Amino acid sequence: MATPISLGLDFGTESVRAILVDACGRQLSIATSDYAHGQITQRLPGTNEPLPPRYALQSPGDWIESAASATLAAISEAEISKAEIVGIGVDFTSCTMLPTTRDGKPLCELDAFKHVPLAWPKLWKHHGAIEQTDRINKIAKARDEPFLKRYGGTIGLEWFFPKMLETIEHAPQVAAAAEVWLEAGDWFVWQLVGGPAESLTRSTCQAGYKAMWSVADGYPTSDYLNAVHPELARATAECLPGVMRSPGERAGVLTSAMAERLGLKAGTPVSAAIIDAHSAVPGVGAAEPGTLVMVLGTSSCHLLNSTVMAEVLGVAGIVDGGILPGMFGYETGQAAVGDAFAWLRRLLGLESFATIAAASRQLPPGAEGVQCLDWMNGCRTPLMNGALRGAFIGLGLEHGPQHLYLALMEASAFGLRWIIELLRDAGVPINRLVATGGLPHHNRAIVEVYADVLGIEIEIHPSTQGSAVGAAVLGMIAAGPEASGFQTIIEAAAAMASVRDGKQDIVYPRSDRTRLYNPLYENYRRLAAVTANQFNHS
Amino acid sequence: MATPISLGLDFGTESVRAILVDACGRQLSIATSDYAHGQITQRLPGTNEPLPPRYALQSPGDWIESAASATLAAISEAEISKAEIVGIGVDFTSCTMLPTTRDGKPLCELDAFKHVPLAWPKLWKHHGAIEQTDRINKIAKARDEPFLKRYGGTIGLEWFFPKMLETIEHAPQVAAAAEVWLEAGDWFVWQLVGGPAESLTRSTCQAGYKAMWSVADGYPTSDYLNAVHPELARATAECLPGVMRSPGERAGVLTSAMAERLGLKAGTPVSAAIIDAHSAVPGVGAAEPGTLVMVLGTSSCHLLNSTVMAEVLGVAGIVDGGILPGMFGYETGQAAVGDAFAWLRRLLGLESFATIAAASRQLPPGAEGVQCLDWMNGCRTPLMNGALRGAFIGLGLEHGPQHLYLALMEASAFGLRWIIELLRDAGVPINRLVATGGLPHHNRAIVEVYADVLGIEIEIHPSTQGSAVGAAVLGMIAAGPEASGFQTIIEAAAAMASVRDGKQDIVYPRSDRTRLYNPLYENYRRLAAVTANQFNHS
Repeated sequence: MATPISLGLDFGTESVRAILVDACGRQLSIATSDYAHGQITQRLPGTNEPLPPRYALQSPGDWIESAASATLAAISEAEISKAEIVGIGVDFTSCTMLPTTRDGKPLCELDAFKHVPLAWPKLWKHHGAIEQTDRINKIAKARDEPFLKRYGGTIGLEWFFPKMLETIEHAPQVAAAAEVWLEAGDWFVWQLVGGPAESLTRSTCQAGYKAMWSVADGYPTSDYLNAVHPELARATAECLPGVMRSPGERAGVLTSAMAERLGLKAGTPVSAAIIDAHSAVPGVGAAEPGTLVMVLGTSSCHLLNSTVMAEVLGVAGIVDGGILPGMFGYETGQAAVGDAFAWLRRLLGLESFATIAAASRQLPPGAEGVQCLDWMNGCRTPLMNGALRGAFIGLGLEHGPQHLYLALMEASAFGLRWIIELLRDAGVPINRLVATGGLPHHNRAIVEVYADVLGIEIEIHPSTQGSAVGAAVLGMIAAGPEASGFQTIIEAAAAMASVRDGKQDIVYPRSDRTRLYNPLYENYRRLAAVTANQFNHS
Repeated sequence: MATPISLGLDFGTESVRAILVDACGRQLSIATSDYAHGQITQRLPGTNEPLPPRYALQSPGDWIESAASATLAAISEAEISKAEIVGIGVDFTSCTMLPTTRDGKPLCELDAFKHVPLAWPKLWKHHGAIEQTDRINKIAKARDEPFLKRYGGTIGLEWFFPKMLETIEHAPQVAAAAEVWLEAGDWFVWQLVGGPAESLTRSTCQAGYKAMWSVADGYPTSDYLNAVHPELARATAECLPGVMRSPGERAGVLTSAMAERLGLKAGTPVSAAIIDAHSAVPGVGAAEPGTLVMVLGTSSCHLLNSTVMAEVLGVAGIVDGGILPGMFGYETGQAAVGDAFAWLRRLLGLESFATIAAASRQLPPGAEGVQCLDWMNGCRTPLMNGALRGAFIGLGLEHGPQHLYLALMEASAFGLRWIIELLRDAGVPINRLVATGGLPHHNRAIVEVYADVLGIEIEIHPSTQGSAVGAAVLGMIAAGPEASGFQTIIEAAAAMASVRDGKQDIVYPRSDRTRLYNPLYENYRRLAAVTANQFNHS
């Protein structure tokens, strides 16, 4: 048997990427195709209808066109036959969602609605539902809804129900015509495998992290939804058909029509979709429980699979099978990481941190008295309060830019230590740390400070294709053990996405610095507590 | 009678300035003469003896030489006769002090001691007495000495007794030979008027602010001084002869010898000396009670005459007759003002604040959430703690350098408001604010923020010669009413040093901003309290 190959389709904000990875972890080819209409923020395609501010839409046709084009290119570049592809995985931005007819036709493709902005798919970053989000939160808090605990007490502006409610209130004719509401990732998988709406596959990942769904409780109760808006209760009861499946579970097999369109073989198994960020977990070879995958970018997202279910205060989402099948997925976050460094760099009038990096490296832990609180964009985990703000204290005439730079790195590390301690204190084991995303490659210094503060070694995963590789791992699993040769997703991820021996970049903690950081961490916690309780003027 | 003229001699760190001012406030001439040896910090003149670090000495001969040269030049430039000069005033840096023989000969001019550094006058900024200052404070606190209350609880490194004790411990042969210890200002006045040590004039200003002296209690008790060092008790009892007089009171009249040396008329009345900073009070025409004179520079010094005596927590010095005769002199301070702005400018990588001044001016009070604590060099009044440090809180990605700049100006203004409230709450009236020093001329924006925060108009006094003019006012008063035509020092200061009508620069508060600043001031006080109590890791 030839080495099995899987196709990962990674739907980003501007383009889709198709990657072919074999069971030995060789990346055979990558091809990208930009969406013809990209992000739609000014005028609707075709009708030229102008959009209000804060709108961000997409075109479903773009997803199909670009996926076909990227897939054809990847197969051609890899010089393989389509028959060698044993499975397909899909990751997608989220919550990107749309209303369709019962047979999956997007409402925005109907003549009756093509000029109505809210009939189009709303991209994850569409911010039209500010008012609706406020109401959804206020009523949930007043009723002490149990789902709040799973999201640190706050429902996000970019999530599924706020976007549904926005359409119900601002385009009732669209809401009335919508027979199915669903995530774009789920819609795309449905297009691939066909079948009636009743049996379409919804991803537990998207549902769990963005639609307040859980294995135990399902969606929010109709009592609660009625209190928010009767039409929201009706739509939830009638327009969310389908079957919940975890990423890696098989949604179905490729239809002949879509096989032809994408240049693939009909009957190829397709995995349930996954959120793009979460796809980085299998994508860096970390599908086993107890490994915290830190996706470090403008903000940071930390993902963890565990066999332990525990309610952890302020953890942004805990979802049964939410990342991979059979495990509890934990998602936590820090609201400003790369963003905060870019802000500080601009504030200090620096072109780059290179000019002060050496001076900063020579400072002892604690930046000679300068302390920072890294809440320049609020606090995600654990306080879930976007209105909180950051600080520098202990400032004296003797301090320069290098002190502020080190203090910010230390604050970011202390924030991460707080999150890890919360999980561990709740009985959720963390045995291994893997850093990925853009930041570790631009700024290794911050990972060094993280390791020193945590007292744990951190592996930097070199992949810049983590999400796409993760989708390919999920496709391989959906193919089943006979086709793929893998019994478990842990094996598949390890084989397909781990760093090869000798190429690992591991940052080790320096124990003399770790010791000094213990009392400084207590100072950070005190600064955080005082700031949240006494300096929060929001 | 010709308009009376007074000579002010203003002894600074590098040079002496002679100014001739008449009773109508006309500045007839100014002449400056640099000290031949300037600040002596490396090697002693003559013997070339090397100095330890932190030493800063001066040569008494320089003071005489430079005073003579500047006075002769001023008289010549003004084209007046020496007979028209009715009085002489002297202001001097402090605590600059020296040991002499019983007849006023500086020990450093004796062959036996000219090679001994500690026999030379110690300049105010000489920092050799760190250890001695610690002990003086520790023992005073342990014994709860009553003088501590008048200085906010701490004796300064640059004051009189630490400098005496340093010599006692490190150059006992000098201490044993010293028959008189005195301030340089008092020594110079003694040189001018002659007479025995018993009747030399000591300024209540220098004694009160720098030598822990008060009208009620005199110097510290011999019990306390014995506990510090028996030799300090002996020297205080035996080697501090003289009579206390307030600045403006007559110390005597010019001797023939010094009249010849300086080109003046023998018999001209001479005032008791004053500290250079304090001389700015009469020097800006503010000799009346209730006017706070703010000398705004790298740090800020606020001086106030009052008819009310009140112990005010954390006020750096309260001295009966300490600034002008017949009134209680209050001195308060902010440790970093111009220094803090220079630091922030460097930190932000700016050549000047000009590039962000317009953006900062357009911000509403409160800098859109950024709060600052201006303790970058510790807190002088009211907490008297040099180890405290500053802060910026409320920082978000939406903030730029202009927010930090405005927040620092506001913090400085809030710190000043705190001081003014402390004085007023203690029953000490403040009716008028006058700003002088270098800062208001470089940066009018900060005075505007001060006025807005305080809700009081602030007069900016244009003089850059405040101390020298103040000395001339004191010389005029020492001349007596018959010679000067002035019955009171308030009249003299108003006539000689006020800003002429129509040339006043008055900064008015904007009431809409003042209202908004009230709650923000409460936030500042909370930040200060939390920082002092919870974030003080010193």
